[in-house]
Amino acid sequence: MVPPELDEGLPLERIKDFSLEELLGMAIKAEIGARRFYKSLAEKIEVKSLRDKIEWLAREEGKHEALLRKMYKNMFPGKEVVFPEEHIGPELTPVARELRGVQDIIELIRWAMKAEEIAAHFYEGIEKMVGTDDRKRLMRYLSDMEKGHYYTLRAEYELLLDWEMYSQMMHVGP
Amino acid sequence: MVPPELDEGLPLERIKDFSLEELLGMAIKAEIGARRFYKSLAEKIEVKSLRDKIEWLAREEGKHEALLRKMYKNMFPGKEVVFPEEHIGPELTPVARELRGVQDIIELIRWAMKAEEIAAHFYEGIEKMVGTDDRKRLMRYLSDMEKGHYYTLRAEYELLLDWEMYSQMMHVGP
Repeated sequence: MVPPELDEGLPLERIKDFSLEELLGMAIKAEIGARRFYKSLAEKIEVKSLRDKIEWLAREEGKHEALLRKMYKNMFPGKEVVFPEEHIGPELTPVARELRGVQDIIELIRWAMKAEEIAAHFYEGIEKMVGTDDRKRLMRYLSDMEKGHYYTLRAEYELLLDWEMYSQMMHVGP
Repeated sequence: MVPPELDEGLPLERIKDFSLEELLGMAIKAEIGARRFYKSLAEKIEVKSLRDKIEWLAREEGKHEALLRKMYKNMFPGKEVVFPEEHIGPELTPVARELRGVQDIIELIRWAMKAEEIAAHFYEGIEKMVGTDDRKRLMRYLSDMEKGHYYTLRAEYELLLDWEMYSQMMHVGP
């Protein structure tokens, strides 16, 4: 089941159907969505070590948004960012519902992993489309950062599956 | 050239020559070394965004040390941690010298990437040796975290290679 916080979006190969300007707009929109998703998720998590990690992810996505806006401004000076309706790959949105327990957190982290993984490939796709070395480099930067997020989430996910050990190892509770 | 902050250590296949107790001791020593390396490196970096990231890595390695000590205590109750002389893979030590510029930072980050990559494989090796699911899970956690660090560093490394863009994108200077 796909949770309400995740819209699966278009497959990665649809990247070729959009202009670079549209893809950058999608990327900015995705970073905003991811930041809001992590921020709202963190607010619902009581385990401090995990909440800290999720808040860190939220701040990172905020920085990526700023980087992408700079690049957009640099490539399309004076233009407002165009946000297409569509998006490539899963798009995360804020967690509005109450979470019922660790199973809900595990499920959301699993979907966030998927979104991060596809985001990494999405930036690799844009890398092929931009013409200059500095822009390619920036896309590799973002792609590697999302890969870093993927592994950070995978680590937490793996440990959360054994909640008893997680609680013991991560000083859960008072 | 291998910088003084990095001792290349034994190849990964030597893992089988050590007991689990020794390997855990090596892992704890490596986490301590990595924390001190990142902490000392951060103190020498003026670019705030990069310094923040390196300080974050130092804190993460500190948490890993604490996790490993817990596991050690749980597996070898009442025993002092044994720190073997040898170590598998590169071991990071504090940066004592003055760095001459971005080239020195780039070189150190490249070596830290190597250390993180081998650490990830080292934990995968220990995962095969531990008998219970919870310990295997913990080793996968640490392995994934180090992979996350590897990609975080690779992202910074890639962008640092174009210092002009890095400065422009990361708000270097006043």
